[in-house]
Amino acid sequence: MNKNTRFDSGSIGLVHTKYFTFANPPDELELECGKKLGPITVAYETYGKLSEKKDNAILILHALSGDAHAAGYHTANDKQPGWWDNMIGPGKAFDTDKYFIICSNFLGGCKGTTGSITVDKNTGRNYGLSFPMITIADMVKVQKKLMDYLGVQSLLSLAGGSMGGMQGLEWIIEYPDFVKSAMIIASTSRLSPQAIAFNEVGRNAITTDPNWHNGDYYGKSIPRHGLAIARMIGHITYLSDISMHAKFGRRLREREAYGYDFSSEFEVETYLHHQGDKFVERFDANTYLYLTKTMDYFDLASKFGSLNSAFENVTSKVLVMSFTSDWLFPPYQSKEIVKSLMNNDKDVSYVEITSSYGHDAFLLEAEHLTKIVTNFLDNLKVDKNGKKN
Amino acid sequence: MNKNTRFDSGSIGLVHTKYFTFANPPDELELECGKKLGPITVAYETYGKLSEKKDNAILILHALSGDAHAAGYHTANDKQPGWWDNMIGPGKAFDTDKYFIICSNFLGGCKGTTGSITVDKNTGRNYGLSFPMITIADMVKVQKKLMDYLGVQSLLSLAGGSMGGMQGLEWIIEYPDFVKSAMIIASTSRLSPQAIAFNEVGRNAITTDPNWHNGDYYGKSIPRHGLAIARMIGHITYLSDISMHAKFGRRLREREAYGYDFSSEFEVETYLHHQGDKFVERFDANTYLYLTKTMDYFDLASKFGSLNSAFENVTSKVLVMSFTSDWLFPPYQSKEIVKSLMNNDKDVSYVEITSSYGHDAFLLEAEHLTKIVTNFLDNLKVDKNGKKN
Repeated sequence: MNKNTRFDSGSIGLVHTKYFTFANPPDELELECGKKLGPITVAYETYGKLSEKKDNAILILHALSGDAHAAGYHTANDKQPGWWDNMIGPGKAFDTDKYFIICSNFLGGCKGTTGSITVDKNTGRNYGLSFPMITIADMVKVQKKLMDYLGVQSLLSLAGGSMGGMQGLEWIIEYPDFVKSAMIIASTSRLSPQAIAFNEVGRNAITTDPNWHNGDYYGKSIPRHGLAIARMIGHITYLSDISMHAKFGRRLREREAYGYDFSSEFEVETYLHHQGDKFVERFDANTYLYLTKTMDYFDLASKFGSLNSAFENVTSKVLVMSFTSDWLFPPYQSKEIVKSLMNNDKDVSYVEITSSYGHDAFLLEAEHLTKIVTNFLDNLKVDKNGKKN
Repeated sequence: MNKNTRFDSGSIGLVHTKYFTFANPPDELELECGKKLGPITVAYETYGKLSEKKDNAILILHALSGDAHAAGYHTANDKQPGWWDNMIGPGKAFDTDKYFIICSNFLGGCKGTTGSITVDKNTGRNYGLSFPMITIADMVKVQKKLMDYLGVQSLLSLAGGSMGGMQGLEWIIEYPDFVKSAMIIASTSRLSPQAIAFNEVGRNAITTDPNWHNGDYYGKSIPRHGLAIARMIGHITYLSDISMHAKFGRRLREREAYGYDFSSEFEVETYLHHQGDKFVERFDANTYLYLTKTMDYFDLASKFGSLNSAFENVTSKVLVMSFTSDWLFPPYQSKEIVKSLMNNDKDVSYVEITSSYGHDAFLLEAEHLTKIVTNFLDNLKVDKNGKKN
């Protein structure tokens, strides 16, 4: 992309990450596990402006390996924009000319917000495994503190895919009066045992890597093999059988016939290794352990007795979206959410998008999502008499 | 099980593994990769008796982690019978009162047949990675040598699930006159890129285990962590989302509430670790590398130009079976085989069995399979005029 044209009319352009610190001792945050944590720093970005009425704020919730940098570029030389740049910007689905968009790295992340990689001020050493176990509810509690700090008194909407959708569900349950509407994309009210199993194998790959050193690898060689394996497993689950056929098929790499050796002969193998290697450069192994555990723990039916009970006090207008080929967060799990909200007479709608991209569709199906999100947000401004506000 | 009752009327009882050696230098076997291998020892078992007409032999083809021990017990104290004991024995689907059943550990296995774990007589050391790459076609060539040695001049039938089905397909293509009929169960004419991807992550877990030592771990600590991870990944793909819900759900192990630590809290985690640990005790890491590669390479359409061409000279009556919830060797791949055989006007039938067990169904759905296999074998004895032979 040409430097002069990259910040085109659809891009929010140059942005930067900001930081907010709270929960300074002795006012530490009480966590769901019973432990206390503080101080907590939150890395966040905002795009667009909060209106005078403060009625145009939208919170974007990222997934496992995401961060606060959802749109735009940090420098003019960045190879990639923020992770949801195809959805956020002037004239885009999350139109920064209209809305005040906020995205923060969640609690326990390794992208600026306090997590296991952070240096514990009490010891001068990285928390590592001494970091308390965090939950989706804890993440949302921290996000609420950020809203307060930013002067956001209510959210016009929020949107999250995958683990971001889990946070979204937690938001509408814990802060019903605060959230006018929510978009829950390719998500679930609880992981399947199959998804837990994949997470556990990934964790096992990390913790059996000799470089892991019981989580104390800071400043030493990192458990890169284990983390790469975890990521490779993850990547297979983010794609679909059909998208892998389309993307790689059984094509060989740089050869016409089998080499009859143990090199990466198939293109799909090279792809996986590349994904694993890239991830090791940008992500932290202990963080991976914590975040996958956080996902495994998330279980609204178990926490509230039933999914119906969980949604009893919801007042937000909810849009649930799933993708036909998503087998990690399959459509039946989205339908369970929709059904329980309907059982409670809540304002819920559901879209199952036909896509071959598997779970990754929530990042790739921008065209579909743009239409749906734009329509959903536009309709929020229509009052009960059908008039636009 | 009580020792006195374990060898009940349905069990073939005590059996033992036999060995046959051929391809002694200078008459080594020429492999598909172009290399030569010899001597080759084959571990095999037989149940029942070859009839005087020599018309009742059935070859059983095992899958990735199987062996020659398909039925009965090696000792009265064995905890488990052979791997397909629910299908093979007096009065069972593969009725040892009627048929002469043969099962051999395939070439490259680690259960008695020559493979990478075998000591190379030229060097006095285990082959390790100096073992040549073998293919499904090589395995079948070795099985044919065993048939010749046993005086089996034709096979009434053969049956194989998963990787065993790949061998079955190779048999009906390479030795059409030799094989009267074949049962191809939960198999494929080529792995999907998704399956190759899972195999490669498993291999990567083994080869990045520091105990692997470039394949030379014999007599030292073995790469148990890597092999266990490979097996855990495999196990997830052998089950199905629905069978995991039924088998484990999100149940916690030995606790009522989350422990907020990194122990194996969910039952599904404990199960996986158990499977990984058990496998390490009974299987060999380099063998896992070779065998998964063998599966990846298998591609009839690529080898013969098209799947239609591959089946051109088939004369066997073929029964193809698949299981609805099998996502590793999904039904659509069985249907491709059926369609290509039909395009060639071959005698093929297809059964898609409704099962929640996933790929493992070929080992677990004994009741369904017994009916189908019994019927198929009975009908082989009916001549074209509808009379029983």
